[in-house]
Amino acid sequence: MNFILRDENAVFYECGFSCDNVVFLKLGSEAFFITDSRYDTEAKEYIQNAEVIVGDRRDLFITVREFIKKSNIKELVFNPNEWSLAKYEKFTLDLDEVNFKQVPNFSQEKRIIKSDTELDILRHASSIGADAFDRFAKYLNENSLGASEQRLHYEAENILKKQGEYELSFSPIFALGRNAAKCHALPSNDSLEINDLILFDAGVKYKRYCSDRTRTAQFDKKINFSKIQTFSDAKQQKIYDTVLKAQEAGIKKVQTGIKACEVDFACREVIDKAGFGEFFIHSTGHGVGLDIHELPIISSKSETILEEGMIFTIEPGIYLPDEFGVRIEDTIVVTNGGAEVIGQ
Amino acid sequence: MNFILRDENAVFYECGFSCDNVVFLKLGSEAFFITDSRYDTEAKEYIQNAEVIVGDRRDLFITVREFIKKSNIKELVFNPNEWSLAKYEKFTLDLDEVNFKQVPNFSQEKRIIKSDTELDILRHASSIGADAFDRFAKYLNENSLGASEQRLHYEAENILKKQGEYELSFSPIFALGRNAAKCHALPSNDSLEINDLILFDAGVKYKRYCSDRTRTAQFDKKINFSKIQTFSDAKQQKIYDTVLKAQEAGIKKVQTGIKACEVDFACREVIDKAGFGEFFIHSTGHGVGLDIHELPIISSKSETILEEGMIFTIEPGIYLPDEFGVRIEDTIVVTNGGAEVIGQ
Repeated sequence: MNFILRDENAVFYECGFSCDNVVFLKLGSEAFFITDSRYDTEAKEYIQNAEVIVGDRRDLFITVREFIKKSNIKELVFNPNEWSLAKYEKFTLDLDEVNFKQVPNFSQEKRIIKSDTELDILRHASSIGADAFDRFAKYLNENSLGASEQRLHYEAENILKKQGEYELSFSPIFALGRNAAKCHALPSNDSLEINDLILFDAGVKYKRYCSDRTRTAQFDKKINFSKIQTFSDAKQQKIYDTVLKAQEAGIKKVQTGIKACEVDFACREVIDKAGFGEFFIHSTGHGVGLDIHELPIISSKSETILEEGMIFTIEPGIYLPDEFGVRIEDTIVVTNGGAEVIGQ
Repeated sequence: MNFILRDENAVFYECGFSCDNVVFLKLGSEAFFITDSRYDTEAKEYIQNAEVIVGDRRDLFITVREFIKKSNIKELVFNPNEWSLAKYEKFTLDLDEVNFKQVPNFSQEKRIIKSDTELDILRHASSIGADAFDRFAKYLNENSLGASEQRLHYEAENILKKQGEYELSFSPIFALGRNAAKCHALPSNDSLEINDLILFDAGVKYKRYCSDRTRTAQFDKKINFSKIQTFSDAKQQKIYDTVLKAQEAGIKKVQTGIKACEVDFACREVIDKAGFGEFFIHSTGHGVGLDIHELPIISSKSETILEEGMIFTIEPGIYLPDEFGVRIEDTIVVTNGGAEVIGQ
């Protein structure tokens, strides 16, 4: 299959290196990593299975088009989600002899089953992520009372980064009380009070692979992010217990050969039966890897058959508008026919 | 003009509010801010000149397509850089009665002249940015000796953010010595040594508007980011003086009625004459506003006529491969017929 890739993670997957200005071309048995002179030295050092080509820094596509023309290929597969309409039209202009074939997210399809090496990296990423939750829990104490959500979000980021050692999988969600119900757009100035519910969703990267985890917990001048939680508010406790039960049901359901939607159904059934179905407003989970959101999708419509080496989150939630929200998320590897929860 | 916008900053410019899930539609005399239920309350609070519509959270475009069909419009202007090919094809499917007209970056074209209010915000952003440079200079002292580039980049980010008070215009560039010559891809472990040259390019946001500034300076257990710099290395001093002279020539050239390329030429001429033309490998500057890169472009090809209320950077540089690089950047407002350097 001849293909072209522009996404950094997709390129990294092909050849073990990437940078922010690259086009990867697979033309027959040959592969080309086309970049600008800034990345030439490192690319050559890290890449074995593709030829490194230095293209024009301002527009690599001049070089890319030359390679395509020269190759005399008839068909080139591309991901239509990777290309803006403007870029695509400019690129394909006068390359009439080539059939540009749209295959949405073909790189992610290739990456759906992780290798043992990838799984080890992902386990390590999750373990670093779990440590970061512990460090943040330690940081939160009576001196945090009155601090704004915005400020604590900032502190959380720093603690996750561990003085620049790690990059983040995404900007963490740190939400207090009713903000946890709505994933607020604007950074809130609400301040941390005693007995506040905290929803914390965060991850770090290790060797470019992402961790992802969410905990909901109560702050009593201290906090722990284990899944065993006591809330002083009875309604919060009830919702929390329901979400935890749903998550456990989802994890228990995981086995090779079933459909991803069955995992979603197992979670949703618990929440539905408790009477909160309308407040579980998202899918149960998503794959995790080089991208924070990968395949498989764990939703009510996902027909993907679970296989050994898949890795995804299970993260049911209940969000009561203007009251509070609860989500519990772990990352799961399908292994030995069932679920292995990583980053414990 | 009927148009559709998806970019957050472009939407903010139209109605004073934005969020990460929005489509803005201008249909005849009516305007619609289509978002999901998470943002409904705040959108209604902040937006006067458009109707807030709650669409389907998973796919706002279902709602958007209904509005377009109902409106009976014949033409809809869109920015082809805002749409992936996949999204565009799905969106326009069976909307045959509408002519989708590509106008690249029409929102940025509208924003090229800033209002007095915008200019005041941008002046304030630049002043906050300059303060951050001073705070970072204060932070760098003999205790920083031996710290890695990666670590100092991390500290710079924190100092710029001022404990979460400000967002960054972009992740700053903090480069030591020879890394300053090539804008390295991988975070370097090179450590800070006495007499190192430091290139620091950074900005913060105020009310969503960006600041942008670069200084190059020598570290002698302390540092200052003023434009008056002394380097112990004669070649560094020569290059620095050339870049500074080029930047001053560019600033002096700014006046209403000239072409942007004349500013680029004024900078480039100084560097060419000094014999380093081939090492000034980028354009002289770019507009700054809600986006960190806006119009006008200040390049050798830019035919834009400078007008009152334009704002852009002037940032010539010389980059000697494997040796070092120097760039000096300020942000300029075209005012009273000439240049006002902001963030001094």
